[in-house]
Amino acid sequence: MRAVQVPQAGGDFELVERDLPEPGEGEVRVTVQACGVCHSDMFAKEGVMGDATPFPIVPGHEIVGVVDALGAGVRGDWKPGDRVGVGWFGGACYHCESCRRGDFITCANGRIPGVTFDGGYADAVVVPADALARVPEELSAEEAAPLLCAGVTTFHALRSSVVRPGDRVAVMGIGGLGHLAIQFAARMGCEVVAISRGTAKADLAKQLGAHVHVDSQASDPGEALAAMGGATVIVATATDGGAISALVPGLAPRGQLIVVGAAETPLTIDAMSLIGPAAQVAGHPSGTSKDSEDTLNFSRITGVRPMIETMPLEKAAEAYAKMMANDARFRMVLTTGN
Amino acid sequence: MRAVQVPQAGGDFELVERDLPEPGEGEVRVTVQACGVCHSDMFAKEGVMGDATPFPIVPGHEIVGVVDALGAGVRGDWKPGDRVGVGWFGGACYHCESCRRGDFITCANGRIPGVTFDGGYADAVVVPADALARVPEELSAEEAAPLLCAGVTTFHALRSSVVRPGDRVAVMGIGGLGHLAIQFAARMGCEVVAISRGTAKADLAKQLGAHVHVDSQASDPGEALAAMGGATVIVATATDGGAISALVPGLAPRGQLIVVGAAETPLTIDAMSLIGPAAQVAGHPSGTSKDSEDTLNFSRITGVRPMIETMPLEKAAEAYAKMMANDARFRMVLTTGN
Amino acid sequence: MRAVQVPQAGGDFELVERDLPEPGEGEVRVTVQACGVCHSDMFAKEGVMGDATPFPIVPGHEIVGVVDALGAGVRGDWKPGDRVGVGWFGGACYHCESCRRGDFITCANGRIPGVTFDGGYADAVVVPADALARVPEELSAEEAAPLLCAGVTTFHALRSSVVRPGDRVAVMGIGGLGHLAIQFAARMGCEVVAISRGTAKADLAKQLGAHVHVDSQASDPGEALAAMGGATVIVATATDGGAISALVPGLAPRGQLIVVGAAETPLTIDAMSLIGPAAQVAGHPSGTSKDSEDTLNFSRITGVRPMIETMPLEKAAEAYAKMMANDARFRMVLTTGN
Amino acid sequence: MRAVQVPQAGGDFELVERDLPEPGEGEVRVTVQACGVCHSDMFAKEGVMGDATPFPIVPGHEIVGVVDALGAGVRGDWKPGDRVGVGWFGGACYHCESCRRGDFITCANGRIPGVTFDGGYADAVVVPADALARVPEELSAEEAAPLLCAGVTTFHALRSSVVRPGDRVAVMGIGGLGHLAIQFAARMGCEVVAISRGTAKADLAKQLGAHVHVDSQASDPGEALAAMGGATVIVATATDGGAISALVPGLAPRGQLIVVGAAETPLTIDAMSLIGPAAQVAGHPSGTSKDSEDTLNFSRITGVRPMIETMPLEKAAEAYAKMMANDARFRMVLTTGN
Repeated sequence: MRAVQVPQAGGDFELVERDLPEPGEGEVRVTVQACGVCHSDMFAKEGVMGDATPFPIVPGHEIVGVVDALGAGVRGDWKPGDRVGVGWFGGACYHCESCRRGDFITCANGRIPGVTFDGGYADAVVVPADALARVPEELSAEEAAPLLCAGVTTFHALRSSVVRPGDRVAVMGIGGLGHLAIQFAARMGCEVVAISRGTAKADLAKQLGAHVHVDSQASDPGEALAAMGGATVIVATATDGGAISALVPGLAPRGQLIVVGAAETPLTIDAMSLIGPAAQVAGHPSGTSKDSEDTLNFSRITGVRPMIETMPLEKAAEAYAKMMANDARFRMVLTTGN
Repeated sequence: MRAVQVPQAGGDFELVERDLPEPGEGEVRVTVQACGVCHSDMFAKEGVMGDATPFPIVPGHEIVGVVDALGAGVRGDWKPGDRVGVGWFGGACYHCESCRRGDFITCANGRIPGVTFDGGYADAVVVPADALARVPEELSAEEAAPLLCAGVTTFHALRSSVVRPGDRVAVMGIGGLGHLAIQFAARMGCEVVAISRGTAKADLAKQLGAHVHVDSQASDPGEALAAMGGATVIVATATDGGAISALVPGLAPRGQLIVVGAAETPLTIDAMSLIGPAAQVAGHPSGTSKDSEDTLNFSRITGVRPMIETMPLEKAAEAYAKMMANDARFRMVLTTGN
Repeated sequence: MRAVQVPQAGGDFELVERDLPEPGEGEVRVTVQACGVCHSDMFAKEGVMGDATPFPIVPGHEIVGVVDALGAGVRGDWKPGDRVGVGWFGGACYHCESCRRGDFITCANGRIPGVTFDGGYADAVVVPADALARVPEELSAEEAAPLLCAGVTTFHALRSSVVRPGDRVAVMGIGGLGHLAIQFAARMGCEVVAISRGTAKADLAKQLGAHVHVDSQASDPGEALAAMGGATVIVATATDGGAISALVPGLAPRGQLIVVGAAETPLTIDAMSLIGPAAQVAGHPSGTSKDSEDTLNFSRITGVRPMIETMPLEKAAEAYAKMMANDARFRMVLTTGN
Repeated sequence: MRAVQVPQAGGDFELVERDLPEPGEGEVRVTVQACGVCHSDMFAKEGVMGDATPFPIVPGHEIVGVVDALGAGVRGDWKPGDRVGVGWFGGACYHCESCRRGDFITCANGRIPGVTFDGGYADAVVVPADALARVPEELSAEEAAPLLCAGVTTFHALRSSVVRPGDRVAVMGIGGLGHLAIQFAARMGCEVVAISRGTAKADLAKQLGAHVHVDSQASDPGEALAAMGGATVIVATATDGGAISALVPGLAPRGQLIVVGAAETPLTIDAMSLIGPAAQVAGHPSGTSKDSEDTLNFSRITGVRPMIETMPLEKAAEAYAKMMANDARFRMVLTTGN
């Protein structure tokens, strides 16, 4: 038997007991130790992803645990006892155009824990073996969990961007994603500008590695960046399309504004603001299980760690509410005691 | 003495005689043979570029002619009689951040013929020697002229993009820029989709090298591209921000929408439409004099030629009006008889 | 029953009858129509690839035919009757480091027709479905076959290189690979220099699209290229390491010498010849089944076609001998009559 | 008057007094505070660069000092008192092919302090203003000097390479260049493997940031790297072509061996060792004055500092001899007391 948190229609979570599922072809069962709480869990919670998400579904895509059982035909050398993590990437189809080109994260048939199958708000999960990332022993389960979505998304966005060591990187928003993006950029040798509303997080930003903090209430952050010479890359973790768009004038020539989160309002961009500086606005969609391993490994060698608050699985509703209210400092992580 | 076309405040052009200017330090004087008429000539015509453009200024930045006289300290081996062209790029400062990185086209102090100094609606012009592109003898002056702005902008956008030979390229708008972009993309070995309103230009598009024509009135072009598997690169030459934005869903994974012209309305982009496919919207700003040489050379070896209508310099007003009315098929070129 | 050509120890090929093999998990059986004869077939013929190649093994990795039967668990929408091709890439393991990064062609456990399993000198083959490339109907089986190794190797090398449209590309060696590389480079809009010993192939090179031919017996090709301004990319298809090394001085700044074939002698490179121009020497290893599809599609839209001599499967020994003697103009293709 | 160290034919240095030179058009005079001693100073010392180097010439291309006087027509906002540095890059011509493409470091007419004009073994030098890099106040003159050649060469090689944060980087040779390369790679977030002969420098390598040390006498370093999974980038600072070549099997797929120093013997490379892993061998030639500024700025924000031994200018002969004997730990720097 396993405990899972099941969202209730129009209401809250309910903790229920279910039979332990058996891993099928190419799948493994993972005993969950920790699971991060991400804003995208609302897809499961609110059932808003349409046909892709059967309701109710168990949320959770920042899962860390231990391999418990293997189904038939599992590729690679996974074995029971291996410490593993699973993020937004829940496996690819290997036969669509993207997969045939090796670009698994844009797979046309990609699977996602907590969206297309039951996720990690649970004692145990069954996932495709291809979705597993190996977790280094230097990282605790609670620390590793947020690196599997908030972490890989920002780390992989940065390392896949046009930025080079020493260049200026701006991070807009100091929350679950932003507080990691600041650390990653600093440990890549970049000059980091952290942008947030007010001054409450200014000191923290510098502790995380930012060289400068810009208070977006006190000054226009696009103008502030331009006054510094512009940022080669801006990672926008906020959800306000208008506020993101206002950063474009802060790009350096050949600069890149990277959007990593679902903005609630559209971006509004003047063509000339991109043409003159040969700039661009790019979307970045998380990363594969190998990208997650790279994120964990980079964090291991450079000392990047998420700031977390843990709650037991039983309190999933409370953790979720705190995250949605933007009160988490900076990532809620559910623990199972396993 | 030389004849120049001078825009009149609130009115039309007036052909006036002026003293032949002397080339200064690092400058050359060019006897103009042909000058293309570009939509951006309105900056000079209407005096809308603010302080950068003293009014009245002589328009024209698609200039082809012959070197007539050299000022002091001209670098390189330019000499009287050389066939040369000058485009949007009118010289760089060599000491701003961009210039020190060798990125002359984003120079903070860049000069532009017909914008920051008198351009090519004239018998003769004086330009910085660094702005000169060598014109191959296989190209007539009239043919070469549009390649110096409409040409280099689309050629350089394409060769600097993520596209690879064989990939699908969409060109939105079949006009001065678009009819060249179609040719360039086809001769780079791409599968070309031409998009225009109605079917009037469908046959022409295919003659230019397009493999498919999409009528944007009959079907949504973003959806049409998506149904083909998406375009790796879309070159948007139209000026309607809304229509450009509607192309984003037509991008293939890792695709790039390139904006090369000043859209009159802003782009409106849903973040998720970029994040899922890891797509991007990029601006592209013309090219340097060396990029122009590359454009001319590519046209020479692959047979790309603009479709032009010529008028004598005296009829600048008429040519300009025809271009603004979108009646040119596809580029108006003024000739001087020199 | 099917006919296969089996290399005999220390001797020639023998045509034998074997039972028709059944496709296993994830595999398909293909009725062979044509199979190119490649220099790398000597791995099978001579049994020189060590443990990787059990001897005797049926050679052939430029296979075109029709899907005949599917094994269990085949991904994608392959079905009997589909026209397909199989090249050097015979499937990947999907779990090594390279595969997890989507870089299938450097798979640590990659399979190869005619090297790790029986290849296409036969009436029928069984291959992993992941190794299939779709063949456009515009290409005959005989024409398509050489594109699956000689073609994809040179096409994919060029499109993955630093070259941009209009740049100068040199192709050293006008044989099975070289005569395709010339066509590909020309149809990508490059200025092509073909290099071969003597003048016998000079006219042909120009018919294939080369703009210039260099006789490597009459002049030093590295010096000849340097005198033109250098080549941005040099594709070396020869097997003489010394001759390849002598091309390095012919690279333009930032240029790239690409080695695609197993040179029989090592490259000998002076470090300074790479440092000054920031140049590089790179190896390029064929391409995946998707890369083959891209090669076939590019050939379809641009008109690239191999020059071939066909012989029936029964004459495999003769075809192989002619290829090894460098007498093929330019690719021997075996046909089955299927 | 100024003191300069002048190499004597077939002998040693001689300290002589010369008139203070006046800066010409576009030039500045710099009061030298410190100048690093680099292996390439032998070009001046031994007069081995042929026509490019008039003999005798004053060596020195790791120059730090203060702007003293400006010639006419100096671009940018340089003024007396500015702290500046000058490295290998001594100005570009701005009109050759490379310069017109903005690639100043491969300029066909590039100037070099201590090679094409008198360098920094002196109280004062005159250099083109375009060769100046601004030196941050956080760096002393002695510390900054080696960053202008040993530093920019390795920093710019790494940031221009295929390496991404978290990837494995190997540095072969722990000397003037290597001890900086290790620091740079570590502070870019890479996993660093330091390779040197014996174990004497093993502890130091780890203090500099290396995660692993390989003793190239105890084990084959190519094999050792391969056993770790291969290095994405190997920076070879040694001068033994054979030893460098032996590293190729240590490259990861898509890996890059970067040669930054003049190897005394050629590289000998088996083509297959590059083809299979799609690997490459690349040369890297220092960097421009802007690249030097970037190097200094990166060092400022990440804490990279050279390990130096200083000697007064009078002892140039002794410092040079110590460097040539490979006894420097790790960079000799001459100081003037200015």
